Amino acid sequence: MTQWFREGLSLDSISIDDRSVQYGDGLFETIAIRDGEPRLWRYHLERLHAGCARLGLAAPAKAALEDALSSAVAVSRIDARRCVAKVLISAGQTPRGYRRDLDGAVTILVGLSESARLPAAIYQDGVILQLCNTRLAAQPQLAGIKTLNRLEQVLASRELHDEAVFEGLTLDTDDRLICGTMSNVFLIEGQSLVTPAMTRCGVSGVMRRHLLTILAEAAIDAEVRDVAIDELWSCDGVLITNSQFGVLPVKCCGEKSWQPADMTRRIMKMVADSGIEEQPA
Amino acid sequence: MTQWFREGLSLDSISIDDRSVQYGDGLFETIAIRDGEPRLWRYHLERLHAGCARLGLAAPAKAALEDALSSAVAVSRIDARRCVAKVLISAGQTPRGYRRDLDGAVTILVGLSESARLPAAIYQDGVILQLCNTRLAAQPQLAGIKTLNRLEQVLASRELHDEAVFEGLTLDTDDRLICGTMSNVFLIEGQSLVTPAMTRCGVSGVMRRHLLTILAEAAIDAEVRDVAIDELWSCDGVLITNSQFGVLPVKCCGEKSWQPADMTRRIMKMVADSGIEEQPA
Repeated sequence: MTQWFREGLSLDSISIDDRSVQYGDGLFETIAIRDGEPRLWRYHLERLHAGCARLGLAAPAKAALEDALSSAVAVSRIDARRCVAKVLISAGQTPRGYRRDLDGAVTILVGLSESARLPAAIYQDGVILQLCNTRLAAQPQLAGIKTLNRLEQVLASRELHDEAVFEGLTLDTDDRLICGTMSNVFLIEGQSLVTPAMTRCGVSGVMRRHLLTILAEAAIDAEVRDVAIDELWSCDGVLITNSQFGVLPVKCCGEKSWQPADMTRRIMKMVADSGIEEQPA
Repeated sequence: MTQWFREGLSLDSISIDDRSVQYGDGLFETIAIRDGEPRLWRYHLERLHAGCARLGLAAPAKAALEDALSSAVAVSRIDARRCVAKVLISAGQTPRGYRRDLDGAVTILVGLSESARLPAAIYQDGVILQLCNTRLAAQPQLAGIKTLNRLEQVLASRELHDEAVFEGLTLDTDDRLICGTMSNVFLIEGQSLVTPAMTRCGVSGVMRRHLLTILAEAAIDAEVRDVAIDELWSCDGVLITNSQFGVLPVKCCGEKSWQPADMTRRIMKMVADSGIEEQPA
């Protein structure tokens, strides 16, 4: 269950006329709260502000977002030592029609929910991925940001029938690897890494950004560029990243499997040393 | 103002956990109510059912939709001789996450609002269009249907700064003409018409379907196919269609203008004779 808050007050519902309902006109961030603090907050904030600029929404001030988050955490019954905060920004209510000339104040909602721990085996042995048939459409105006228009992810997720599959990978219409339905993907090629560019579609994850930052600091070569699906089948190892679980090794995708590479272990240790460490269940 | 109803009961709000809010996971139809009856109802129903099939939603029965609509019309204070009904189908509530394995009953909401009449000059002289910079992404899995993911239309509509502009036209990323933000487009070429195919993106409007049907009955050649933007600049006349206003002639788009062609008048008369006649303000 998710507990929702607006300006520190608990609430369950939203106006049907809200543009989030009618058009998916808004953005969201799914933030890991650890020891009461939003993890990688600056990256979430910057992506949210970038999203507001793209959609032509008045970006809420940093302080307003922090107040919304901290007041929700303070009031909630959810254990703030470890939980998930979903910050949902809606364009609010306007008269009927797509047009939204007055870019007025947005609505800020915060949803808190418990955060399940993953089994230790998943961090040890890696996860199983499935390549989805659903393709991501090329829409540079919405690429990289996290909007409330998520039907492609819903459709891709519907393809994951096998309980053992942890995540679905999606391609664009030109057979480029883009990202998972809820994660980003890194390929290990020798001593280097590569992760798909988010210029046409996909979401630029905060954990992806964090990993790129610590790789740069460690002088490990990590390229951000277009990645043809064939590179997935020929690479030495695969990692996925997400704000909640951090970094996970990938065991297999379809017929293709990978042995945990030394590089995988090294990167997971670096991520843990950077403060992103999840205790398994 | 829109009055919303669920199962004949008035309501204002929806759960924040509803998948319409979180993911835009749903569909809608905007129906013209004329003399208490939903106009072109069968076409709306068929598109809604096609949309449910595409999204993997349990399609509500015809009777359930008709009950929802008629009970809303009966209870509402809005004049049912002439109004707009928005039927919104949501995938409902599920636990957090994109996955929606159990395709359970959808939520049916009906919103009624007043229907403004357009000035007579618009039916006479035609409307002004603007070509938008926002492109529609190619996503065949969602093409033709009317989902709650409408950010492309929101972005395109934000480009329409000039009050005199009635509608924005959108292209796909390969410079093909697709449709307006809220309408479909027909080009007149001599004694024939052409309207863009909705195979990659765009919405297959009910009034477009109605016009195609009556053109076929009148043995007027009307092609549905890919249309390069250049054809817009070289054609003899342009019409737009939409469930509410029916058919409107186009006066100009950017620098290009058209004189009302005889064909335009002939088609507008045919549409009026088919029972789709709007009284101007």
